[in-house]
Amino acid sequence: MKLSEIARLVGGELAAAGDLEITGVAPIGQAGPGDLTFVANPRYRPLLKSTKAAAAVVDNQTEFPGLALVRHPNPYYAFLLVIRHFHPEERPVAAGIHPQAFVAPDALLGKEVGLGPFSVVESGAKIGDRTLIAAGSYVGREVEIGADCLIYPNVTLRERVWLGNRVVVHSGTVVGSDGFGYAKEKGVYHKIPQVGTVVIEDDVELGANVAIDRATMGETRIGKGTKIDNLVQIAHNVKIGENSIIVSQVGISGSTEVGKNVTLAGQVGLTGHLHIGDGVIVAAQSGVHRDLKPGQIVLGSPARDLQKSKKIEAIISNLPEYIEKLKKLERAIFGNKHAEASKTPAAISSETPEEVEAK
Amino acid sequence: MKLSEIARLVGGELAAAGDLEITGVAPIGQAGPGDLTFVANPRYRPLLKSTKAAAAVVDNQTEFPGLALVRHPNPYYAFLLVIRHFHPEERPVAAGIHPQAFVAPDALLGKEVGLGPFSVVESGAKIGDRTLIAAGSYVGREVEIGADCLIYPNVTLRERVWLGNRVVVHSGTVVGSDGFGYAKEKGVYHKIPQVGTVVIEDDVELGANVAIDRATMGETRIGKGTKIDNLVQIAHNVKIGENSIIVSQVGISGSTEVGKNVTLAGQVGLTGHLHIGDGVIVAAQSGVHRDLKPGQIVLGSPARDLQKSKKIEAIISNLPEYIEKLKKLERAIFGNKHAEASKTPAAISSETPEEVEAK
Amino acid sequence: MKLSEIARLVGGELAAAGDLEITGVAPIGQAGPGDLTFVANPRYRPLLKSTKAAAAVVDNQTEFPGLALVRHPNPYYAFLLVIRHFHPEERPVAAGIHPQAFVAPDALLGKEVGLGPFSVVESGAKIGDRTLIAAGSYVGREVEIGADCLIYPNVTLRERVWLGNRVVVHSGTVVGSDGFGYAKEKGVYHKIPQVGTVVIEDDVELGANVAIDRATMGETRIGKGTKIDNLVQIAHNVKIGENSIIVSQVGISGSTEVGKNVTLAGQVGLTGHLHIGDGVIVAAQSGVHRDLKPGQIVLGSPARDLQKSKKIEAIISNLPEYIEKLKKLERAIFGNKHAEASKTPAAISSETPEEVEAK
Repeated sequence: MKLSEIARLVGGELAAAGDLEITGVAPIGQAGPGDLTFVANPRYRPLLKSTKAAAAVVDNQTEFPGLALVRHPNPYYAFLLVIRHFHPEERPVAAGIHPQAFVAPDALLGKEVGLGPFSVVESGAKIGDRTLIAAGSYVGREVEIGADCLIYPNVTLRERVWLGNRVVVHSGTVVGSDGFGYAKEKGVYHKIPQVGTVVIEDDVELGANVAIDRATMGETRIGKGTKIDNLVQIAHNVKIGENSIIVSQVGISGSTEVGKNVTLAGQVGLTGHLHIGDGVIVAAQSGVHRDLKPGQIVLGSPARDLQKSKKIEAIISNLPEYIEKLKKLERAIFGNKHAEASKTPAAISSETPEEVEAK
Repeated sequence: MKLSEIARLVGGELAAAGDLEITGVAPIGQAGPGDLTFVANPRYRPLLKSTKAAAAVVDNQTEFPGLALVRHPNPYYAFLLVIRHFHPEERPVAAGIHPQAFVAPDALLGKEVGLGPFSVVESGAKIGDRTLIAAGSYVGREVEIGADCLIYPNVTLRERVWLGNRVVVHSGTVVGSDGFGYAKEKGVYHKIPQVGTVVIEDDVELGANVAIDRATMGETRIGKGTKIDNLVQIAHNVKIGENSIIVSQVGISGSTEVGKNVTLAGQVGLTGHLHIGDGVIVAAQSGVHRDLKPGQIVLGSPARDLQKSKKIEAIISNLPEYIEKLKKLERAIFGNKHAEASKTPAAISSETPEEVEAK
Repeated sequence: MKLSEIARLVGGELAAAGDLEITGVAPIGQAGPGDLTFVANPRYRPLLKSTKAAAAVVDNQTEFPGLALVRHPNPYYAFLLVIRHFHPEERPVAAGIHPQAFVAPDALLGKEVGLGPFSVVESGAKIGDRTLIAAGSYVGREVEIGADCLIYPNVTLRERVWLGNRVVVHSGTVVGSDGFGYAKEKGVYHKIPQVGTVVIEDDVELGANVAIDRATMGETRIGKGTKIDNLVQIAHNVKIGENSIIVSQVGISGSTEVGKNVTLAGQVGLTGHLHIGDGVIVAAQSGVHRDLKPGQIVLGSPARDLQKSKKIEAIISNLPEYIEKLKKLERAIFGNKHAEASKTPAAISSETPEEVEAK
């Protein structure tokens, strides 16, 4: 494909004398002759010097004489369009019902629906046009799935959950498992029936081995365009707004509401019944126990505002020096004898329980 | 259903003049005309003023003139009974063997067992009366399952594991995977055969995508009535007592023993070979490295007694102010010059490695 | 089996007068008459006094008159060999193609391959000799699997992933799910096609419900002999070296490279694009945000060198006492009035957001 055609494809501008032939795409460190690469983050610009790529997609600020460039205000997005062109999407199942699938007689299938071997579509389910349900996946009773969805192998969609259009669900994921709710009576836990459902809006993607619980009553809801990574836990009655990013191994407890354009980094935990405002960013491994206002950026367990948390982290790293200073002051004021007596060595030795062990 | 009938159903007391007709159940914020709602937590009592519900289940202390009330000492439990009445349980598979299931000829099935499409029951397995094994679930060789169990779709029960009566296992969960044990010899890890099993006692519920490893030798055991949430890791040879609550994404390392009536909140980690006493509560995201006595409540990583941990958290939040005080004292005692010289700015800037990034 | 035969089997030395008959194997606390047990960790030596075992495998240093001993420099490894002898491996599926499996006509199967009921082998896949694919597992298009692999039930191997020889994959695990990558354009996330693959080298074991994402371009790679526990997240383009140990619930973010002989303990999180040197040990629940040099041992979130981190932990445990000292100094220098005025009680009470709640 000619570089000029690529420029046209991505809506960018060709900034090169000749019109090269591009035969593939690759990251800047691995690109070879004939490849197109890209630079989105300015700190990778120096790599343009050493790349073997034939050409690069760059932003409007990047200058690099001697390499054919395609300019686009969002090079990462432009590059995505090129990857799509060179690598047409692989689909895990073709249109049509595999002879070894099971489909209830009253299920409603749209046009060009694909059902893989050993997939199950239960009674009353509705599946939209061109949606693919891969091998071993389960679509429960009265589930509704929109058009152009892609359900990878070994997914479980429990009864009555609702998926919009263009939803992607990766393998091992469970949508609509029972919420975790029990009432204790006479020392024994009794299960609260979980009679609500789950709504997954258009353009959501769910990673592998995710668990999304159905609501006790009402619904658990994932907003349009939100992307959820692998091994995430979404408890009953959680609501997540549009275009949020939930990174791997995050856990969100029951009834918490997360706004739009929120980012929860890896392994974050949110307790229940919180309100997390639009545009919030929670750094990796943080634990959030309180409502967060729109735009807040927090870090730590318990989570604090980013700047404060970083300041505290820096102090903690220097605590040994600060304690030395404290002791020096004590000696200056009270004399050595007193300072000696005020040491707490026993407590120190008994308070180092951490052990490095694999298991 | 008449409110008086509901009072009778739950064993409560009708505290209302007229006898209303109840048509549904809903949480207090969402209830509409005809609905019954409930208040268990005193802090939600004010919501009784604004609810549109026709009636509420409340405890014996709550007074609210103008709303029909059913009194019960445990309103949450009473409400649970009402939900069950209005929403009969949905079962993911009917009694009977689906023609597309696979059952080994020598498997023993009780009365009214239900096997969904593409479920597998291997040789020597025994399944109790009325137990349901949903689509795509796997019951390995010589597994024993009691009566009235509910195994949701795509569950894996490995060879020889044992489940009691009324056990519920949600989708994607694996019971009896090999424990994680290797002996290193000449720089290479050799697998310790994991020849033990798993015992799941009566009335246990396992969430979605849980992993419970079989014992190296002997058994991993989950006690009667214990409830385990989604994405929990239970390592080999762990023992958990009765009526404990293990919240989502908890990890329990090998050979640790957890008592009765314990609560491990979300994302807690326990190292191996610990003894956790009855009634212990471990707060979310805590890391436990030492034995805990019965009734201890702990928080933090490393976990400390709750009150101490809260005190320390409060101090940490105020560390910037305390360090200012320390410096002020230094200036007062040693003068400005000395205090200036003792600053450690380089260390501070090099010790803020945290970055807020989605991945 | 005679003890002398066991000594020969493990390549050890018989240190006993008579030649006992051994009928089973068991851990030291549970062993009964006729059992062989072992002591690898010197702190368990005292248990030799009370064990009911007939004999024990011990190292060359352990003396214990009155018990039959087999000496081996690595007793744990020797014991492993004995367990293997007494408990021949159980395999979840026999050789041969189950009549209810689905195999694409152009898939290439080696000798004595076993395919369980409802397993799927897609077009162009190649499966090596004696490899077993258990019930409900999915082998995508053009997947290549070596010889002597063991794929437990309900595993998903997505298109084009590559597994070496003697690889073990536990139930619920997904290899080759799409990496988590999106470009934001006009407020909406657009998926970066994930067109790379995953390479799992020889002798790797993957636990249950693990997720390993395919690379955006190029490959995600798990090195020879590395062992990965349950519920671990491996993001796109991660590389892990040989003989590393990744304990349960660890998350490794995109493009991070982990060396050889590394140990990541339970619930550790690594941010993206890091280089973790050979032989590194990361303690449980730590969060790593920076490159680590070969041999570093780190602890904490953020992770610090082990000794420093332990020192800081000890100081943190004693912070209440240190703050008392600080206040005493303030009173001594500035008088009571000033010290009183400088207290920050409001901040303290507002900064204890932690709540102990199950969910």
